[in-house]
Amino acid sequence: MPEILTLYSAKICPYAQRVEIALSEANAQFDRYEVDLRDKPEWYAPKVNPASKVPAVAYGGPKVPADEPSPSSTKIAESLVLLEFVADLYPDANILPKDPVLRAKARFFIDTVSNKYNPAYFAYIIRGEEGAREKLEKATEDIQALLPPEGFAIGEWSIADAAIAPFLGRLIVALENDFGGYPEGEGPVLLNDLRQNQKFTRFSKYLQDVTARRSFTDTFDKEHIRQVFASRLTRAAKTA
Amino acid sequence: MPEILTLYSAKICPYAQRVEIALSEANAQFDRYEVDLRDKPEWYAPKVNPASKVPAVAYGGPKVPADEPSPSSTKIAESLVLLEFVADLYPDANILPKDPVLRAKARFFIDTVSNKYNPAYFAYIIRGEEGAREKLEKATEDIQALLPPEGFAIGEWSIADAAIAPFLGRLIVALENDFGGYPEGEGPVLLNDLRQNQKFTRFSKYLQDVTARRSFTDTFDKEHIRQVFASRLTRAAKTA
Ligand SMILES: [Ca+2]
Repeated sequence: MPEILTLYSAKICPYAQRVEIALSEANAQFDRYEVDLRDKPEWYAPKVNPASKVPAVAYGGPKVPADEPSPSSTKIAESLVLLEFVADLYPDANILPKDPVLRAKARFFIDTVSNKYNPAYFAYIIRGEEGAREKLEKATEDIQALLPPEGFAIGEWSIADAAIAPFLGRLIVALENDFGGYPEGEGPVLLNDLRQNQKFTRFSKYLQDVTARRSFTDTFDKEHIRQVFASRLTRAAKTA
Repeated sequence: MPEILTLYSAKICPYAQRVEIALSEANAQFDRYEVDLRDKPEWYAPKVNPASKVPAVAYGGPKVPADEPSPSSTKIAESLVLLEFVADLYPDANILPKDPVLRAKARFFIDTVSNKYNPAYFAYIIRGEEGAREKLEKATEDIQALLPPEGFAIGEWSIADAAIAPFLGRLIVALENDFGGYPEGEGPVLLNDLRQNQKFTRFSKYLQDVTARRSFTDTFDKEHIRQVFASRLTRAAKTA
């Protein structure tokens, strides 16, 4: 029986949403504390996460208010560490299968997200680097190549899907609003391409499935993300 | 009972040694194939690892020679994926404990190796970047801060130690021979500092313990590594 768990999260943060998705899939009981990333409480770094980032978890120890973390709970940071932690705490939720080969496939998918997909996402959406669209399309093909004929990253839904879903959800918000560092007008065109172009047929179906999943929609505040992106990712905001 | 396993490895590669260490700790039976990284067999990328890197594993399928891999075995790449895979295949070897909190600590340690220690190692030893010595000393302190008062990364030996040991072993070889991109003469001085300076006392003990472990020494060909480093990492070789 898992102990008391407090999640320090932020609605804008894709890394934090990963963990919220996993906790939702596991039907976990937990307290959630929204950290204002632009004005972090002064107790957050010393008492919860020295790196001062979300997500972080306080696990175990006495029942205390989230803003008065106990020194006797274990503090755990890093979203991918936390995805495995949730899977380990709730083995019956089967968010990471028991079979070693399937587990390896889930982890290899996550590695591809970390080392190929996300760097391309940030290069294109946030920094608008030259050549980043090609890089993002190539990374999309790399993800697509790992997908089985149907279903999720390794067939049944798993933490591999939790690892990518928050980035895909934010990609859609950015592209459909043409928010980002890439050339003006390109967002909706690329989104249409990802959804309609025959070379992305399997990815397109996955994009739809993974963002329709209940654990995703329950933890994704689209309007909040759109507003934050509007203030930070518009070209006007960037050049201001 | 695990199926047939073939490891594609290379003695020079720290990532490959990680997996050899884990297999050694698990007392696993496996075939080992040495890939010549400077002249890879033409079947390697198409039949084993499209990324053309080591380590990679062929798991299951019929018993075949390592240089004639069967399409019916599962191919798995990426050293950290493979560390978890070995732990999953051999649960009784206890190279990753059962307790979810200890597992999270092992994975957080590995994350610190990947995202702090190794980038500093490469910046200093391989590229000799400006400011890299301070970066490596800072990363050493970060690792040290995670170590318990005694024992290994999380107390008992685990895959967290397998993740860092190959880099520490190669660090020693580079520094004691003054091989690398950093300023001439600095190697032995830094090594002495890491071993003797009071600010690294706990790290120094760990460095000694982790490189004295049987699974490390059995998979570490120091003379081979010294020779390869001598031809690639000397300042003369770099400027030639
Ligand atoms: Ca990484």
